[in-house]
Amino acid sequence: MKILIMGGAGMVGQKLLKQILKKQDLRSQKITEIILFDIIEAPYPENTNIPIITKFGDISDSNVSNEIIASKPDVIFHLAAIVSGQAEQEFDLGWNINAKGSWGLFEAIRSQGDDYCPRVVFTSSIAVFGAPFPEKITDDFFTTPLTSYGAQKAISELLLADYSRKGMIDGISIRLPTICVRPGKPNLAASGFFSGIIREPLNGKEAILPVGTDVRHWHATPRSAAGFLIHAAELDTKKLNNRITLNMPGLSATVQEQIDALGRVAGNDAVKLIKHQPDPVIQKIVSGWARDFDTQRSIDLGFKAENNFDEIIKIYIEDDLNK
Amino acid sequence: MKILIMGGAGMVGQKLLKQILKKQDLRSQKITEIILFDIIEAPYPENTNIPIITKFGDISDSNVSNEIIASKPDVIFHLAAIVSGQAEQEFDLGWNINAKGSWGLFEAIRSQGDDYCPRVVFTSSIAVFGAPFPEKITDDFFTTPLTSYGAQKAISELLLADYSRKGMIDGISIRLPTICVRPGKPNLAASGFFSGIIREPLNGKEAILPVGTDVRHWHATPRSAAGFLIHAAELDTKKLNNRITLNMPGLSATVQEQIDALGRVAGNDAVKLIKHQPDPVIQKIVSGWARDFDTQRSIDLGFKAENNFDEIIKIYIEDDLNK
Repeated sequence: MKILIMGGAGMVGQKLLKQILKKQDLRSQKITEIILFDIIEAPYPENTNIPIITKFGDISDSNVSNEIIASKPDVIFHLAAIVSGQAEQEFDLGWNINAKGSWGLFEAIRSQGDDYCPRVVFTSSIAVFGAPFPEKITDDFFTTPLTSYGAQKAISELLLADYSRKGMIDGISIRLPTICVRPGKPNLAASGFFSGIIREPLNGKEAILPVGTDVRHWHATPRSAAGFLIHAAELDTKKLNNRITLNMPGLSATVQEQIDALGRVAGNDAVKLIKHQPDPVIQKIVSGWARDFDTQRSIDLGFKAENNFDEIIKIYIEDDLNK
Repeated sequence: MKILIMGGAGMVGQKLLKQILKKQDLRSQKITEIILFDIIEAPYPENTNIPIITKFGDISDSNVSNEIIASKPDVIFHLAAIVSGQAEQEFDLGWNINAKGSWGLFEAIRSQGDDYCPRVVFTSSIAVFGAPFPEKITDDFFTTPLTSYGAQKAISELLLADYSRKGMIDGISIRLPTICVRPGKPNLAASGFFSGIIREPLNGKEAILPVGTDVRHWHATPRSAAGFLIHAAELDTKKLNNRITLNMPGLSATVQEQIDALGRVAGNDAVKLIKHQPDPVIQKIVSGWARDFDTQRSIDLGFKAENNFDEIIKIYIEDDLNK
C-alpha cells in the first residue's frame, strides 16, 4: 500500500500524515511507502518505520504530475491548492494550480493505462456554495461559487466524477467545513478569527473578534478533517452511485456558542482576552458564507465530526496546545 | 452591433441566424456584421442586407479562438460543441472541444483587455443533471452529470460564471430542453425518436418508437431555442445576481401526449405510421433523463416556451415542413 499526499506540507496534510503513521495500514493493507508532495519540501517525523519520500514542484506543470504518478501510488490524497484569498487575487495562479493542476493529475493517472485505477480522495470545500442559502444546505443544493477558489474546486469535483464514472480513477470528493481550531500563528484569512478567538486566549494572548456574536458558521477540527480523508480512502465507492461528492459533517455554531464553550473549558479570564473590534470588510465577506448543513448522506456513510464546541476546544488542547 | 455565432452551421445556430436576420437589431442596436463560425463553413442565405462572414476551424486550438475574437464582436453566441453521444465515445475530443474549447474562448476574450467585455450567451444543456431526480427539477438542484458531455457543459458554466463575476465577460448560460421537432433526417441520437415520431409521419413516413408511451420528457421547439438565445443576449444580466445559469422553460409531455397531439393536428393516419419497437438500450438511456422542471426563475425573467404539444407540432409545420 503506497500512499501519496499532494499538499503534504499543509496543516491538514501534516495531520493526515500523523494519523496515517499511527494507523500503519490503510484499506486493510500494510503501508509500505508514503510520498509527501508539495510546492516546498514537506516536514516529516524522523525514525518512522514506514519509508517517507518527499517531492516538490508545481502541479500546473504536467511533467511534474506525470513524474509523481509514475510510481503508481495506490491511494492519492489530493489536498494541494492555492488558498481562497490568494486565488481571488492571482487569477491565473489559482486557475493554473487549483483547476488545471487537478486536471493534469487526473490525466497523469489516466495515462498510466487501464490496469491502474487508484483511489483519489480530493479535498474540496464548502466554498463551492455561494449565498443566498437555505437555512440548512442539503446534499442536492447547487454550486454557485462566489470565489474563483470555489469555482476551481467545483470544476475539479466534476472532472474527478467523470474520470471516475469512466473507470479511469476511483475517486471521491469531500467538502470540508472550516477547520477550527487551526493551530499555529494568526493569519490574514477572513475566516481566521473563528480559530483565533479560541486559540489565542488559550495561549494567554488577546484575540480580535471582527464580527457580531450572532454569526453562525460550520466547523470541524483538524483531527476530524484527517479522519474524513482516511474514511474516504477506505469507503466502498460503489455505495456512492456516481455521486462521488460529499458535504462532510460538521458543527454549526454561533460565535456566542464558541465563546460560551471557551468559558466552560478555560474559564472567564480566557473569554476576557477576546476583544470586539467590528470590521465591515470581514463582516461582509462572512455574511456570504454557509452557516449550516444537512449532511445526512455522509453521516450515513460513516463520516464523523464533533457534536459540540466544547469538544472542538478540547481536541485543540489535546492535539496542539503547547506542541 | 457585431454578432458572432460559434456553432453557426448547426441546426440551432441556423435557426438563430434566421431570427436575427429577420429582427435586424439586437439590444436596440442595428446589426452591422454577423460572423458565423463552425468546424465547417456554415451555410447562409444570399442577398441579406447585413454582411455575413464565415470562418471555420477547431476551437481547441487557442490560436483559432484568438483570431475569431480579435475583431471584438459585441455579442457572442457560443453553441459550438461535440454532441453527447460522440463526446461519450471520444473522451479526448469531447473534453478538448466542449471544455478546453470554451475555456480557450473565454481566455481569448479576457486577453483583449479591460475595455472589452462582450455579452456571451452559452448554450448549456439539461445533460448537466443526472438521475435520480425529483419529480420536478428546481433551479437550485445540483449538477451530477452522467455523461462527459454533461460534465463539460457544467464546467463551462462554472468557468463563464467566474469570468463574469470578475467582470471579464458579461455572460449568461442557458440550459436548453430537448429540441423537438428537430427538422431534417432521422439521426442516431438516443433522443431522436421524440422528434421522429412527429416529423416522419408528417412527411408520410414510418417512425420507430423504441420506448413506452408513458415516458415523460422535456421539450422546446427550435423556434423557442433561438428565441431563448436572443432573449438571453438582450437581458439585463445584473438581474441574475451572479447566478448566470438558467434552466430554460419547456413543455413536459409523455410520448402518449405527443401521439395524441399528432392525432389532433394531422389525423389518425399519421398516428398509424408510428411503429412500436421496444429497444432496451434506448429505454435504459432515456430512463436516466430529466422528465420535468420548475423553471419559475427563467419564466419570471421573460423566457417563453410552448404551452402544449399541439403548438410544438404546428410550429414544425410552419417553420420546417416541406422546406
